Amino acid sequence: MHAQRAYLDYNASAPLLETARTAMLAALDTGGNASSVHAEGRAARRLIEETRREIAALVGGAAEHVTFTSGASEAASMLALPDWRMGRAPLRLERLFVAASDHPCLLGGGHFAHENVHLLPVDRDGLIDPDAVKAILAANGVAGKSLVAIHMANNETGVIQPVADIARVAKEAGALFALDAVQAAGRIPLDIADLGADFLILSAHKIGGPKGAGALVAASGLVMPEPLVRGGGQEKGHRGGTENVAAIAGFGAAAREAARAVELMDGVRALRDEAERAIREIAPRATIFGASAPRLPNTSFFSVPGLKAETAQIGFDLAGIALSAGSACSSGKVGPSHVLAAMGYGEEASALRVSLGMATRAGDIERFASALRGVVARGAEEKSHAA
Amino acid sequence: MHAQRAYLDYNASAPLLETARTAMLAALDTGGNASSVHAEGRAARRLIEETRREIAALVGGAAEHVTFTSGASEAASMLALPDWRMGRAPLRLERLFVAASDHPCLLGGGHFAHENVHLLPVDRDGLIDPDAVKAILAANGVAGKSLVAIHMANNETGVIQPVADIARVAKEAGALFALDAVQAAGRIPLDIADLGADFLILSAHKIGGPKGAGALVAASGLVMPEPLVRGGGQEKGHRGGTENVAAIAGFGAAAREAARAVELMDGVRALRDEAERAIREIAPRATIFGASAPRLPNTSFFSVPGLKAETAQIGFDLAGIALSAGSACSSGKVGPSHVLAAMGYGEEASALRVSLGMATRAGDIERFASALRGVVARGAEEKSHAA
Repeated sequence: MHAQRAYLDYNASAPLLETARTAMLAALDTGGNASSVHAEGRAARRLIEETRREIAALVGGAAEHVTFTSGASEAASMLALPDWRMGRAPLRLERLFVAASDHPCLLGGGHFAHENVHLLPVDRDGLIDPDAVKAILAANGVAGKSLVAIHMANNETGVIQPVADIARVAKEAGALFALDAVQAAGRIPLDIADLGADFLILSAHKIGGPKGAGALVAASGLVMPEPLVRGGGQEKGHRGGTENVAAIAGFGAAAREAARAVELMDGVRALRDEAERAIREIAPRATIFGASAPRLPNTSFFSVPGLKAETAQIGFDLAGIALSAGSACSSGKVGPSHVLAAMGYGEEASALRVSLGMATRAGDIERFASALRGVVARGAEEKSHAA
Repeated sequence: MHAQRAYLDYNASAPLLETARTAMLAALDTGGNASSVHAEGRAARRLIEETRREIAALVGGAAEHVTFTSGASEAASMLALPDWRMGRAPLRLERLFVAASDHPCLLGGGHFAHENVHLLPVDRDGLIDPDAVKAILAANGVAGKSLVAIHMANNETGVIQPVADIARVAKEAGALFALDAVQAAGRIPLDIADLGADFLILSAHKIGGPKGAGALVAASGLVMPEPLVRGGGQEKGHRGGTENVAAIAGFGAAAREAARAVELMDGVRALRDEAERAIREIAPRATIFGASAPRLPNTSFFSVPGLKAETAQIGFDLAGIALSAGSACSSGKVGPSHVLAAMGYGEEASALRVSLGMATRAGDIERFASALRGVVARGAEEKSHAA
């Protein structure tokens, strides 16, 4: 990235870490198909199995229960298949419960029939109420198994869900519990057992690894979805297709850094808080969404009355600040945020997200504040011209 | 790879081309999420759209009908979903017809119910008989749409199917026709219209690109499978998940080289023929499978009476030759080849595959011949000890 720019869009994609880049380059030179028995194949296999241990270590899981995928959306789409198996026996999941503020990869209900997908509401702070989950599970009680699949930390607001309580409620109702930990990884501690999750979803490129690798980590592996991608029986039969060795190796390097990053998040939090002080000073009527709830230390999602996010975002880009209006999905199509809608905000909430990372420096926040001042001033000027 | 080794396993994975490596490195430095509207995101988007045009050019298709996936197995798994759509209207495919010698990603029937998957037999040469396809389609005639999905060239034998005839038969029966062109790309000319295919499946790493990218190319896009991987609406809604920009950029570079490689295949064919002369000279009772059928210029699949492929493969590896016993799938588990079984060969056929590429040199074939001589001599010795 250009030295003059401030990249404040880590929740969309974190810049590739130098260690991850080095690991990828080494893996690219390894060549070979990890399923081949010759030396080239075995070298690729070793890199994959090393990374499996790194990923397990990041979340306190077991390497044997880590399934590599092409990314988090694929891992979520696997979980959102109604056809599962318990050992060798088929298991049909009856219902899928997702949070109204989930990422589209879960929110869409995956491969479940529309009528079997239920939304768990969030409050004005973006939090899921465990009692509400309990009531919804009871009202939609079924004889068979269901899956509750929610995000641990929201990609737009950074709001952290009361995961352990929701896990308990799901368990009591006999449901499986899956946690999209994509935005939480590398920012807050993750322990699959403490969280009470049956499954965790991880993405490499959100923690400084490359795009093209993700993982589904199971707590036990007793029940698993049928493979979504089918091929030559790779990943113990859970995910077919030649493994993307280089991306997986980069994922491993990033996972090592992520464990360390969690310890150093106070610095990132201080910079985020500094950004929010600037927002409140420059635009006293600004709303910072989810600010009174537990949040990731790196994320701020805010709106300024009268400031359209789509145009403001372009203004920031021209000023050398990369940030986003909501999430990055859907080819830059920017519409009202479904996360804010789920939180009870209407069309008026045209919000901007700054998301920081380990490489963010005080100068980046100063540049952001200066650009915000300009964007807000131009917004006010345009309004006075229009009046 | 080690300078002293001969890599003769291109059908498992081709070594990464220097141009593909360069394109990947440039893309890694681009950073950003291709769905973000800021400069970093737009740079990633440009690389993806450039590659879309390269892939389309390789197969005579239109860029707008190229959907990027994480690889060929994912593209095949997409096609092997029974739920499709025609424009916005849902379309349920009733049956899936696959070749008995197809790659496992199709052979397994994907997400179709087992009873709706039908196998198309192959003859002793590994060829599908279009008349047999016609009869099977007629015998399993259905009111709705079906899909015929076969490989263009076999990954183990290199045998090339009479594709245009099978396409015609499929069309006459009102079925969709999909072609796994993974092994054909970069070795024989590909033109989606001439082939009569509704869909082509491609893989980057089989043509010298990186692992982690593949494509589903549609002839028209009028009918498409529902998305397999669901997320933020990327790839025009056909494939969710943040795009693997680096792998896609490497795929583009490899596709450019692949178009040129096809023109230069005579050299590869001469080396493959030289390898087969050596096989016949060293082991006059050897069988070369599919030798009388049209074959890819780079592939030879053979067995030597009394020589167990699994042990021979290890002998070759120790002698510095990377080749394979059948396909590379399934974590190096080596069992009898389902391709040879489909061709009517029994357990006796313990076969080895050599598959060449543009970087193969005469010295590699000499090393192969010398290693074969040693492996065959040791096999004969062991037998005489056992006798």
